[in-house]
Amino acid sequence: MAVLQREYGRRRLLQDIRRAGRIPRIALADQTGISRATVTTITAELLQHGLIEEIAPSSDDPDARRGRPRVDLKIRGAAHLVAGGKISNRTLSLVLMDFEGAQLAELEVQLASPRFAPEAMAEVLAGAIDALAAEAGVTRGDISGVGFGIAGIVDATSGMVYWSPSLAERNVEFGTILSARLGLPAFIDNDANLVAVAEKTFGLGQDHSDFIVVTIESGVGMGLVINGELYRGTRGCGAEFGHTKVHLDGALCRCGQRGCLEAYVADYALLREAATMPGADASASAAARIEALLAAARDGDQMARRIVERAGRIFALGLANLVNIFDPGLIILAGEQMQFDHLYAEAVIAEMRQSIVQVDKPPPEVVIHKWGNLMWARGAAAYALDKVSDLALGGLGENAA
Amino acid sequence: MAVLQREYGRRRLLQDIRRAGRIPRIALADQTGISRATVTTITAELLQHGLIEEIAPSSDDPDARRGRPRVDLKIRGAAHLVAGGKISNRTLSLVLMDFEGAQLAELEVQLASPRFAPEAMAEVLAGAIDALAAEAGVTRGDISGVGFGIAGIVDATSGMVYWSPSLAERNVEFGTILSARLGLPAFIDNDANLVAVAEKTFGLGQDHSDFIVVTIESGVGMGLVINGELYRGTRGCGAEFGHTKVHLDGALCRCGQRGCLEAYVADYALLREAATMPGADASASAAARIEALLAAARDGDQMARRIVERAGRIFALGLANLVNIFDPGLIILAGEQMQFDHLYAEAVIAEMRQSIVQVDKPPPEVVIHKWGNLMWARGAAAYALDKVSDLALGGLGENAA
Repeated sequence: MAVLQREYGRRRLLQDIRRAGRIPRIALADQTGISRATVTTITAELLQHGLIEEIAPSSDDPDARRGRPRVDLKIRGAAHLVAGGKISNRTLSLVLMDFEGAQLAELEVQLASPRFAPEAMAEVLAGAIDALAAEAGVTRGDISGVGFGIAGIVDATSGMVYWSPSLAERNVEFGTILSARLGLPAFIDNDANLVAVAEKTFGLGQDHSDFIVVTIESGVGMGLVINGELYRGTRGCGAEFGHTKVHLDGALCRCGQRGCLEAYVADYALLREAATMPGADASASAAARIEALLAAARDGDQMARRIVERAGRIFALGLANLVNIFDPGLIILAGEQMQFDHLYAEAVIAEMRQSIVQVDKPPPEVVIHKWGNLMWARGAAAYALDKVSDLALGGLGENAA
Repeated sequence: MAVLQREYGRRRLLQDIRRAGRIPRIALADQTGISRATVTTITAELLQHGLIEEIAPSSDDPDARRGRPRVDLKIRGAAHLVAGGKISNRTLSLVLMDFEGAQLAELEVQLASPRFAPEAMAEVLAGAIDALAAEAGVTRGDISGVGFGIAGIVDATSGMVYWSPSLAERNVEFGTILSARLGLPAFIDNDANLVAVAEKTFGLGQDHSDFIVVTIESGVGMGLVINGELYRGTRGCGAEFGHTKVHLDGALCRCGQRGCLEAYVADYALLREAATMPGADASASAAARIEALLAAARDGDQMARRIVERAGRIFALGLANLVNIFDPGLIILAGEQMQFDHLYAEAVIAEMRQSIVQVDKPPPEVVIHKWGNLMWARGAAAYALDKVSDLALGGLGENAA
């Protein structure tokens, strides 16, 4: 199978070694269906280029106890360093990882503004990555690639950001701009997609080939994993759950359209309604006003409850639509802020279960996974790992395998 | 790569020969990346088992004109016969196909009732398949497999019909029942899925790896092709577009829930509203009442127009949600009945385009493909072809390849 077979074999073996942590060659052959001879050839090539290394098997290995000579293979952590970053309103979170996925440093930077011109954003990122590298005693030049997650509509393939609440302009080739400023390969993706990558790589999606991640921050995001791969759609920007329509001619959305899910469940939607309540304090911060609304709802204020309950019911309706269309085995509701607990309530999940097509099989599992900003950054780093692996394997060329 | 490689190679080569119609071995090796030696071995095996045959290249082939000896490979039509069927309200449509996909016979049967007990339905199908075989001068025993499409919620893997408007019971193992009655392998699927298979095999989806087919008959169906494969979801019954919710606590649906898309756009939904119009003739047939409503709307009757226009706008909203979630390159609106022209109107498509996330790329192509019942049956036969190919390849066992 010539070139195709060699490329497939390299990718598959590196992936399987990464997933296993440590694994002997024979187990690689068994689980991939690739012949032992080919496994030997390809792993020799990966060893020679320093992407993997041999390691003595752990002492509780039964073969080792019987005294057979055997070595395990593992990813060589020192092969490459990658950074991952994510912007969330005014917080920039970054992690530095080695090629094995071990975290070497982390950093959170508070930003002066929630929106930046593209070049200014690249400048901020470059400074932060220098600081991150210094934390680990290295320099930016030691890093092989940077993954970066941003809210909005992003074409990951081209690095184009069509729109983001964090950027002051539309249709920005931000991947190119960032790459040029850093002098490093930079990989941009929608932040919810990167949460899905993180769940697939480190999290609850490790054992699932098809699952959906729904994220809630100031907007509603979605990442879709089908057949073990992130699904991006034809235009590269699929899975826009927050702008699916839940009401014909409904509430006005920040995107300019009417009836979007976000226009009922996002913080701005709640605040818009809360402003109508008697005694609303328009001078308080958005966070304080949200907190006051949720507290009032908990205390039994009828108007506050009507606002919060409708948001929950509309969110349930949106989730039910995802289930009816995709029939996933698992839905992960990810978010970092306690303020969205009302959307993650048991009553909301129950309403979703009642609104899906009823068949004689269990409904999809719904799990709530609260993430800190650093976990989002880890997703971005995992994406960079994947891309840097591709670059490294591509660099091996077409030598005999 | 041992067994995996051999199985992959057999499937891939048979598939590529089917797609090409006729193709030389060397082109197969080029387009699949499978080595020439392996192509020679596997095609020898397929020839030996009579699944393919050699054929002189067509005279306009440039190599042939230069006098080089070469043969093309093609599927051997006589290798297997398959039947495909589809029930639509009171019409049963059937086709008989050879292994090359050439149609040998067709049959339409008018049914006494729109709903049958499972065993009675199997009985009707057995009689119709005998008649279909007789048309082609063969008998049922000459047929290798039967594909059958039915509206409703179907798990194709197990042949379980959770619910269908055509069956009098729920949770019926109809695949098993039909297979036993026919004495043949029977493959059941949701009818909209089979339209997607037909579009992929014979129709507008041949050159697309990701597309959506939306069907409208008495209900709204959907078939989803992702990466060139039908997507079925975890429970085997994904893609229930007609029961996605378009309104919280909205109109009552036949499924028992509220706010489903079908409850706004299906014929029963239109009739329910039309009954409220002054002068509505409750004694007329459903088809006549739908026709009267649509005629009144065309003639400018305000009430009729409000009914029909809302159905179109809700349909546009549902389509926009599909686009926002999947970002497909192509949407095929399939249907056989002119009565749904109001849903396929340019105004509806335009409203859909305005309701999707706007990026600096063209929106998905939307094409309308009017199918007769026999085309649906061809989809079912194509599905049977696929399944019978798998059975035939499985029967080759693990001989050296």
